[in-house]
Amino acid sequence: MTTPRLGFIGIGLMGDPMTRCLLAAGFDVTVWNRSPDKAEALREAGATVAGSVGELVESVDVVMLCLANTAVVEAVVFGDGGVARHGRAGQRLIDFSSSDPAATRDFAERLERECGMRWVDCPVSGGVAGAEAGKLVMMAGGESEDIDAIRPLLAPLATRVTHMGPVGAGQVTKVCNQMVVGCQAAVIAEMVALAETSGVDATRLSEALAGGFADSKPFQILVPRMAASDFERPPWHLRTLLKDLDMAVAQSQRAGSATPMSGLAAQLMRAHASHGHAEHDPATLVEAYRQRS
Amino acid sequence: MTTPRLGFIGIGLMGDPMTRCLLAAGFDVTVWNRSPDKAEALREAGATVAGSVGELVESVDVVMLCLANTAVVEAVVFGDGGVARHGRAGQRLIDFSSSDPAATRDFAERLERECGMRWVDCPVSGGVAGAEAGKLVMMAGGESEDIDAIRPLLAPLATRVTHMGPVGAGQVTKVCNQMVVGCQAAVIAEMVALAETSGVDATRLSEALAGGFADSKPFQILVPRMAASDFERPPWHLRTLLKDLDMAVAQSQRAGSATPMSGLAAQLMRAHASHGHAEHDPATLVEAYRQRS
Repeated sequence: MTTPRLGFIGIGLMGDPMTRCLLAAGFDVTVWNRSPDKAEALREAGATVAGSVGELVESVDVVMLCLANTAVVEAVVFGDGGVARHGRAGQRLIDFSSSDPAATRDFAERLERECGMRWVDCPVSGGVAGAEAGKLVMMAGGESEDIDAIRPLLAPLATRVTHMGPVGAGQVTKVCNQMVVGCQAAVIAEMVALAETSGVDATRLSEALAGGFADSKPFQILVPRMAASDFERPPWHLRTLLKDLDMAVAQSQRAGSATPMSGLAAQLMRAHASHGHAEHDPATLVEAYRQRS
Repeated sequence: MTTPRLGFIGIGLMGDPMTRCLLAAGFDVTVWNRSPDKAEALREAGATVAGSVGELVESVDVVMLCLANTAVVEAVVFGDGGVARHGRAGQRLIDFSSSDPAATRDFAERLERECGMRWVDCPVSGGVAGAEAGKLVMMAGGESEDIDAIRPLLAPLATRVTHMGPVGAGQVTKVCNQMVVGCQAAVIAEMVALAETSGVDATRLSEALAGGFADSKPFQILVPRMAASDFERPPWHLRTLLKDLDMAVAQSQRAGSATPMSGLAAQLMRAHASHGHAEHDPATLVEAYRQRS
């Protein structure tokens, strides 16, 4: 069995370190990015830079995507000169992007029909630090046969790849993750404001409750930032959480399964975004509850 | 400086192991409990059993309470023959119970006025296992002088005692903790049901998302129980979470600080309790969202 040749499309904050991990593990990687300079930067690390998506697809066995959102995935796969025009049976596409689950199922069906390529959705968790360390966590959707076949390619990138169900199940799992994270951010904001007006030194909350049932990564990140009104250099944007919660509500509508907490959290974040906070730290949510004179 | 004599009122699931830790650390402990057999069981571990609350209060320097709720605390402190009738200036009362913050402030003011005793609210987190191991986490409200004075008495019980603010601030902090835990339980329930109807193997969710931003102790406890519909031997009761969320909403009304997420979680749990689930595992919340034929 020969080592498969890999193609990586989307050399961004996540794609760049992921590609470097694959190169460091000895894989032959061809890259393509909409802004070519980001792809060029990988040449000295050993990557081949393709002149087009088509050139990349035709020269590799497996196509990996790490793109901003569902619309970009659709454009790269089904747009003019996209993956579907150049793909062939026997190739596999691995989508590391966080995309809409229903769109993912539609894309997978369409890609196989148009060119015979098989789809595995494989969104990741762990952020840039996880990507740089090759310690991402991945949630995969697809056929067992396809997922087993790609596991060796994911080994340099992830400490864990869990097969969650058929195509789209990885994206649903990512949505599930974000439901919990988004609701956490919303309740933590109201909690910090209530603590402050109730005579509690909110700067001590994260230490006081560390290791207990309320503790979590968002708790340890957001509570100190909220208590100190430290909204500079946000670790992530309100807009992102809102997009994910909206995806949860859309999935809830399609599946006929109620999500009242996620629905409320989405609306609270939409109201906050409408006050100019879309690009700000989710920690700014505490301001929505604080007293104003 | 002589070692203070301790009195412990409320020998329940938490009070029993806490008293044993104090005895094992060499303290002289007098105990009282409404059902005397639970107090008697501590005699062979070295405790003195008092015949009444008054006898206990008159023979000790510090009175510790670990009682079921605010109403029981009020009855034991201010009822006939209660702590306030027998207390004296210079004594301190430490309340380990989880009580209402506003009632706590009222009790503290009243106790000092009536007999000169000073109040420290010191609710705990860590459950029975934490109490048995002497590894509780405590959130204290009161004067710095009082809290510094009692720290040596708490050392056998807790790994951490955080001073959160004036009297009542410990109780507010416990309410804050429970806001996050209650909202977690509510969002996890809708998440598991959505995952199931969306083609995800929900039994893999806790493994897939372990260590990530959605992870927490409630996540690791509730998700597998929900996915497997394992509602036997609940680690805690829906009724308890509902009581705590109601306390959060009451504090929100008093403080004039909105808590929309906690308010919704309370109403969702009230609806679920009204279907006969008050004494059940909070994991049964998933049933509120599952499809029925």
